[in-house]
Amino acid sequence: MKASKMFFEDFEIGLVFNTGSKKITKEEIISFAKNYDPQDFHIDENKAKNGPFGTLVSSGFMTLGVSFTQFFETGVVKDTGMGAWGIDELRWTFPVYPDDVLKSEVKVIEKKLSSKNPSKGTVRTLHTVTNQNNKVVMTWIANFLIKTKN
Amino acid sequence: MKASKMFFEDFEIGLVFNTGSKKITKEEIISFAKNYDPQDFHIDENKAKNGPFGTLVSSGFMTLGVSFTQFFETGVVKDTGMGAWGIDELRWTFPVYPDDVLKSEVKVIEKKLSSKNPSKGTVRTLHTVTNQNNKVVMTWIANFLIKTKN
Repeated sequence: MKASKMFFEDFEIGLVFNTGSKKITKEEIISFAKNYDPQDFHIDENKAKNGPFGTLVSSGFMTLGVSFTQFFETGVVKDTGMGAWGIDELRWTFPVYPDDVLKSEVKVIEKKLSSKNPSKGTVRTLHTVTNQNNKVVMTWIANFLIKTKN
Repeated sequence: MKASKMFFEDFEIGLVFNTGSKKITKEEIISFAKNYDPQDFHIDENKAKNGPFGTLVSSGFMTLGVSFTQFFETGVVKDTGMGAWGIDELRWTFPVYPDDVLKSEVKVIEKKLSSKNPSKGTVRTLHTVTNQNNKVVMTWIANFLIKTKN
């Protein structure tokens, strides 16, 4: 879904965004993991066969970055996002394999105006990432800072 | 600290690992963020001047990957790590700027043998990432799966 810019005031609890899809390649898995998660089952196809997943799988940190980017690409926080202060309850529920196609659903679950700075507020969102078989591979809660209209 | 391989049984509550250091460059910040966090304040030095941090800063997802890799490079879970099932209470407490030098302290805070599969167990670790001024830039709790000796 392409949506227009949203300020803190525009985020209503229960609002849901559905993102576009992205195919995860073996090359991307290896390239990411060499720098940010160099475990054998993310970087070495042969060693991965004897590892806990029996094959190469995506780094969960990469799946996280993909999932955030899918939300960012909806456009809603492009000009109003002020960063984020944290993540809660991130769960990797199923492996992400090469050639999987991932998409995200992002649901607004809470919001709170900053008590120190009324020009921004926290918007909490629950991100559910699914593969091409609608299997949930990851869920996480983001705490974003979003500009207010004032 | 370089340490030797550790199984689930070897992790004692309160044990602390101190990692090596890594310098974060502007080039790495931009390169990572183009794929996994394409917000202006991570990818565009000029636009970042008018953004919430007044300058380019590292993606928090990149800081997370750097921090995990610093722990992995201690060697303790190289052959015994079976992945991870989640992250709790991740907090970005201070921006990471170009040329910052990051290191991590990793403390074992909890462990629990799997009830379904006695060949592994969860080890929970609190990761505290600091910069060259000993300012804490990020904390997070990992839930790792670690092989048992059996």
